[in-house]
Amino acid sequence: MSSEQIAVNTIKSLGMDAIQKANSGHPGMVLGMADIATVLWHDFLVYDPRDPTWKDRDRVVLSNGHGSMLLYAMLYLTGTSLTLDDIKNFRQWGAPTAGHPEYGFAPGIETTTGPLGQGFANGVGMALAEKWLSEKFGTDLLNHRTYVLCGDGCLMEGVSAEAASLAGHLGLGKLIVLYDDNRITIDGATDLSFSEDVAGRFSAYGWHVLKIDGHDRQAIREAIQQGIATTDKPTMICCRTIIAHGAPTKAGSNKSHGSPLGEEEIRNTKIGMGMDPDQHFAVPEEALAYFTEKDDSRAEKRKQWNRNLASHPQKDEFLSFFERPDLTGVEWPNFTTGSKEATRSSSGKVIQSLAKALPNLLGGSADLAGSNKSLINGSDDISANHFSGRNIHFGVREHGMAAICNGMSLHGGVLPYCATFLVFHDYMKPSVRLASIMHQPVVFIYTHDSIYLGEDGPTHQPVEQLMSMRGIPNLWVVRPADANETRYAWELALSHTDGPTALCLTRQKLPVLDRTDLESASGVLKGGYVLSETANSQVILVATGSEVSLALSAHQQLQQQGIGSKVVSLPCWKVFDMQDSAYKNAVLNPDLPVLTIEAGITFGWERYTGRNGSSIGVDRFGASAPGDIIGQKLGFHTDNIVARAKELLR
Amino acid sequence: MSSEQIAVNTIKSLGMDAIQKANSGHPGMVLGMADIATVLWHDFLVYDPRDPTWKDRDRVVLSNGHGSMLLYAMLYLTGTSLTLDDIKNFRQWGAPTAGHPEYGFAPGIETTTGPLGQGFANGVGMALAEKWLSEKFGTDLLNHRTYVLCGDGCLMEGVSAEAASLAGHLGLGKLIVLYDDNRITIDGATDLSFSEDVAGRFSAYGWHVLKIDGHDRQAIREAIQQGIATTDKPTMICCRTIIAHGAPTKAGSNKSHGSPLGEEEIRNTKIGMGMDPDQHFAVPEEALAYFTEKDDSRAEKRKQWNRNLASHPQKDEFLSFFERPDLTGVEWPNFTTGSKEATRSSSGKVIQSLAKALPNLLGGSADLAGSNKSLINGSDDISANHFSGRNIHFGVREHGMAAICNGMSLHGGVLPYCATFLVFHDYMKPSVRLASIMHQPVVFIYTHDSIYLGEDGPTHQPVEQLMSMRGIPNLWVVRPADANETRYAWELALSHTDGPTALCLTRQKLPVLDRTDLESASGVLKGGYVLSETANSQVILVATGSEVSLALSAHQQLQQQGIGSKVVSLPCWKVFDMQDSAYKNAVLNPDLPVLTIEAGITFGWERYTGRNGSSIGVDRFGASAPGDIIGQKLGFHTDNIVARAKELLR
Repeated sequence: MSSEQIAVNTIKSLGMDAIQKANSGHPGMVLGMADIATVLWHDFLVYDPRDPTWKDRDRVVLSNGHGSMLLYAMLYLTGTSLTLDDIKNFRQWGAPTAGHPEYGFAPGIETTTGPLGQGFANGVGMALAEKWLSEKFGTDLLNHRTYVLCGDGCLMEGVSAEAASLAGHLGLGKLIVLYDDNRITIDGATDLSFSEDVAGRFSAYGWHVLKIDGHDRQAIREAIQQGIATTDKPTMICCRTIIAHGAPTKAGSNKSHGSPLGEEEIRNTKIGMGMDPDQHFAVPEEALAYFTEKDDSRAEKRKQWNRNLASHPQKDEFLSFFERPDLTGVEWPNFTTGSKEATRSSSGKVIQSLAKALPNLLGGSADLAGSNKSLINGSDDISANHFSGRNIHFGVREHGMAAICNGMSLHGGVLPYCATFLVFHDYMKPSVRLASIMHQPVVFIYTHDSIYLGEDGPTHQPVEQLMSMRGIPNLWVVRPADANETRYAWELALSHTDGPTALCLTRQKLPVLDRTDLESASGVLKGGYVLSETANSQVILVATGSEVSLALSAHQQLQQQGIGSKVVSLPCWKVFDMQDSAYKNAVLNPDLPVLTIEAGITFGWERYTGRNGSSIGVDRFGASAPGDIIGQKLGFHTDNIVARAKELLR
Repeated sequence: MSSEQIAVNTIKSLGMDAIQKANSGHPGMVLGMADIATVLWHDFLVYDPRDPTWKDRDRVVLSNGHGSMLLYAMLYLTGTSLTLDDIKNFRQWGAPTAGHPEYGFAPGIETTTGPLGQGFANGVGMALAEKWLSEKFGTDLLNHRTYVLCGDGCLMEGVSAEAASLAGHLGLGKLIVLYDDNRITIDGATDLSFSEDVAGRFSAYGWHVLKIDGHDRQAIREAIQQGIATTDKPTMICCRTIIAHGAPTKAGSNKSHGSPLGEEEIRNTKIGMGMDPDQHFAVPEEALAYFTEKDDSRAEKRKQWNRNLASHPQKDEFLSFFERPDLTGVEWPNFTTGSKEATRSSSGKVIQSLAKALPNLLGGSADLAGSNKSLINGSDDISANHFSGRNIHFGVREHGMAAICNGMSLHGGVLPYCATFLVFHDYMKPSVRLASIMHQPVVFIYTHDSIYLGEDGPTHQPVEQLMSMRGIPNLWVVRPADANETRYAWELALSHTDGPTALCLTRQKLPVLDRTDLESASGVLKGGYVLSETANSQVILVATGSEVSLALSAHQQLQQQGIGSKVVSLPCWKVFDMQDSAYKNAVLNPDLPVLTIEAGITFGWERYTGRNGSSIGVDRFGASAPGDIIGQKLGFHTDNIVARAKELLR
C-alpha cells in the first residue's frame, strides 16, 4: 500500500473512531474528502507546522464545518497543532476539538464554521485581504493561496452566492474551492431540492471551473495545479465524491451524514482498507512520516520569507499592519458647535482622519457608499485589475459583505469596516454573530438608524434592531448623540480589538452639542455619562443618539417649570455595564426614577428603568412620511417627554 | 402618438411628478420600466379591476420596491385601486402610497417590498402555492401566472439566489420574471461590483432565459408570450433598459436612481415625450381608456371563473382553504404522563393531527426535516413533476424558505409552515420581519432551541435569538415546556391569524409533566400561567421551555426546606402581556421577588424581574459537549436555582 493510501486510511479511521467515541458527529464528509485533504495538505499546502501562524501561510477553510474531524485529523497528522488526546476528546467540554471548528481553539483553525456558507465567504475575504496586501507589499511578503473546502449545503446558501459573485468580479485568482459534490444532504439525495448546474453557475460568476472524480488523487492533483496556474480567476473544482467513501453499507447514503457509523460498520470499513479492525485511534508511523516528510523544506520557505521581511523596505509598516491600531497619530476632525450634521456625516469625516493615520483601514458599503458616508476620499475603488485602492464596492450583498469582512479580519493585516442601513443588519446577522464568537474587530457602520429616515417607510426603518444587537454577546453597539460623540464612538470601536462594534448613525441632521455647559463627549468611552444635571434632580432622562438632544430640550423645559432633572447619554450599554458600581450608580442613581427616550422598541429598557419604568419608544413598525412628522406622531417631542417625566413624579 | 405611447408617457410623468412633489423617491426605475409595465398590464395581465382580490388573478410583485410609483401609477390607471389624490400624497403620513409598496394598503399591492430580493422570493412562493392549488383543484379554479419585476439589487441578494435555485428545481412554469437590467445601482454603474452573466446563472438554475431590449415593446410582448408558452420552467426575461429612460440629462445615470429628477429635468422630459411641461399629474383620457378598454372581457373571465367555482365539486373545500383554519375537527394527540419526549417530537405528532384536519397545511424544512420532525407522514414530497404532496424540501436555504412561505401565505389558500434550527432564525430574520409587517400567519418551527443541543457547539446553540425574536412587533414567540404545552403552542399559533408565530422546541427529551397537581397546559393560550404554587409563596420562579421542569424540581426542593414558592410557565410573552392587569398580577404578584430561568441571555428578563431582579441564563456563547454537561456547567441545575432563590430572600 502506498504511503499516500495509508495516509488517507489513517484520516478516515481517526475520523470514524473519534465520532464513534463521541457518539456524535458527521463521518460521511470525513471519509468522502480524505483523498482531497491528503493531496491538498501533502502536495500543495504552503505552511510550516513549526510556525503555524506564519503570516504568509496558505489558508484552508473548512466551510462544511460539520466535517470538523477531517480538519482535526490533518492538524494532528501534519504536526500543526492538536494531539491524539485532543482527538480522543472530540466534542467534549473544554476540548479544542469542538463539534465544529472554533477559531482560536488551535492554530490551523482559520475560522469558525458550521453555519453553512459562512466559511466560503470568509475564504473570499481572506483572498481579498491577501490580494490587497500583496499589491501593497509585493509577493515577497504576501503571496499565498486560500483553499476552501465546501459541500452542497454551503452552495445552497445565499451568502456563498453573494460572495462567489463578488469573488468572480474581483478576479481573486489565488482562491481555490474544492466542492465535495457527494449528491447527499441530511434529508437524502440532493435531488430532493438541488438540481442546478453548479459548474454552470460558477462559470457565470466568472470563475474557472473544473469537474473531477474526487477520489482520483491524480485528478485532484492536476486540478489543483490548474487552479494554481489560473491567476486571473478564482477556481471551483467540483469533486464528484461518495459520502462515507469506503464504508461497506453506508457509503453513498445520507445515513452517514450526521451520525456515527456504528462499531460494526467501522470494523468493516477498516477491514476493507486493510487496517486492523481491533485498533482504535491507530496512527501508523507511515502516515505521520508522509505528512511530515517535507517539513524541512516547508520550514525553509518560511525562513526565506523571514529573510525577505528582514530586508524589506516596508518591513516596519508591514508588521504594524498586524498590530492593534495605533490611534496616537490620528488628527481627529473638529466639529463646529451650533451647526447641525448627521452622525453619518460626522462618521464620514472621522473615517477620513482615521484613513490618514491607519493605512490598513479599508472597507466599503453594500451599494450605499454615498448614503453611508463610508468612502475613503482620495482612494480608488478596488477592482479586479486595480487593487491598490481602499474602497470596496460590495454590491447589494450585505450578508456576503459581513462574512467577507470577517475573513479579511481573520487573515490579518487589514482593518476592515463595512456599511449599510441599520435595518439591513438583519441580512448580515449570522456573520455579525460569528465576528462576535471569533472576537474579530470588524466595524459595522449602520446608518439611517431609526424612523427618522422618513419616507422610505417601515421596511427601511429599524425598530427592534438596536435592542436585538445589544443582546449579542461581545458585540459593542454604539449610538452616538452628535458629531463629537461620533468621534469617540469610532475611538471606542477601534479600541475594541477583541470583538466587533456596530456604529448606529443617523440619516438626519443633529445639533453639534455645545459642550460649554455639558460634559465632554469622551464619556462615550465609558459607555454612558451624565451630560447635564440640575441641582435637586428628581428624574433621570436617559437617551441615545438622536434622542439625546431631545432629552436636553425637555431637561431645560423641566427646569423652567422648576423640576430638576439629569440627562444621561447612554451610547454603549455593554461598555457602561462593564464600569464599576460606583460609577454606574453615580450616573443612574438607583433612587431616582428613569425615563428613557430612544427611537426603537422599549422592550429591553427595563434593564435601566425597572419593572415599572417609563420608556418612550417605538413599539410598532414605522411609517412612510417625512421623518420629523413621524417623530412628532410617535411622541418624540419635548412636550411629551416633559409630560411623561412629570407622570413619573406623581 | 399611439395610445400605448401615451400610456407609457402618462406613467412616466405621474412618477416624476409624484416623486418631485414628495421631494423623495426613485424615479429612474419608473421611467426605465414604464414600457414593460404598459405591455404587461395591458396585453397580458389577467385581473379584474372591479374585483381586484379575485383569487385566480395574476399576481404582480414589484421586487424592486423603491420603484413603488410605477406600481401605484398602474393601480390607478387600470382602476384597480388608488386615486390620483393618493398619488399626489405619495410618501406622506397616512397615505396608502408609502415609500415602498406596503401589503394591505391597497388592493393590487400583493406584497411588501423594499428589502431587496424578498419580493423575488415571495413570487416564487406565490407560484408554488398556485401550482399546488392548481394540482389539487384543477386549472378551472387556479391557473394564473406570477410576474416579478426586479432589478440588479434583487439579483445580487442571496435570498433571490436561493429562491431561484428552488424555483428552477420545482419547474415553476407559471413564474415569469422581468429583470430591469439597467446596469446602474445606487453607487454607480453595476460594473463596480456586478459583472456576472445573469442569463448564464439562471440557465444553470434550470430557468428559461430570454434577453431583450426593454424599451422595444414588441420584443417585450414576444418574450412574455414565450414565457407563457414555456410551462415546465420559470422564465427570466433580461430586459436591457436605460434608467430614467427619456430624461434628457439623467437617463443612464445613477443620479436618477434615488432622488427626484428636478423641475427642469422633468420639464424637458415631458417636452421630449410630447407632453405639456406646465401640467402636473396630467392624466390624458387616452391613457385611462387604453388601460380600461378590456375591462369587460376582464370581468367576463372572472365571471366565468365564478361559474366554474359554483359548479365545482370541491367548491366548499376550495373556499374553506381561504378561510381561517377551523380547529374544531382536530384530534389532538395524547401524551403519556411520566414519559419523556422532546418538544420537537411532540410537535411532530401535533403536525400529524393538524394535517388530517387541515388539508391545506403544508410546509417543510431547510434540509433538517428529520431533526425538525416537520414531515407530514403519508404525504409525498413535492417535486417538479409531482405537486400533490405536502412536504416541501427547501434545501439548505433558510432565507429563501421563509420568504417563499411569506409568498405562499400572501397568495392565500394554503397554511404554510417551515422549519430549521432556532439559531438559523438569524438567516431568515429579514423575511420573518416582513411576515410580521404584513400580518401573515406563517408558522416558523425552530427546534434545537438552546445550549442543550449539545455537541454541535456555539455556532449551533442559540443564546440571544429567543430574546431577539420577542422584540419583533407582531411575532408571537412560543417556547412550550412539555408535550402538552406544545399542543397548545400549536393551537396558539394557528389562532394567530394576523401574524406569524415562532415555535421554539427542544432537541432533548423533557418529562411530560403530570398535570394531576399542576394547572392545565391550556394556560399557554394566555401566554403564561401559574403551574404550581405553595402556600405562603415567597418567591416566583419563572421559566420557559426546557427550564420549566427544572424550576419545578427547585420548587419542590424549596418546599422541603420550608420555603414556599410558585412556578410560572411563560411560553409566550406577547400574549401574556396582552392579558388584563388582574390576571398578570395574579400570575406575577408585584410584591414577590422573581427569579427567572431560561437557557438564553438574561438581558430582557428585567421586564419581569425589575432592575434588581435575578435571572439564570446564558450570557455568553455556548460550548461543545453533551447537552446535560453544558447545562450543569452553566448553572442549570436544581441546587443553583435553589441557592439563587434563597439569595433573593435575604
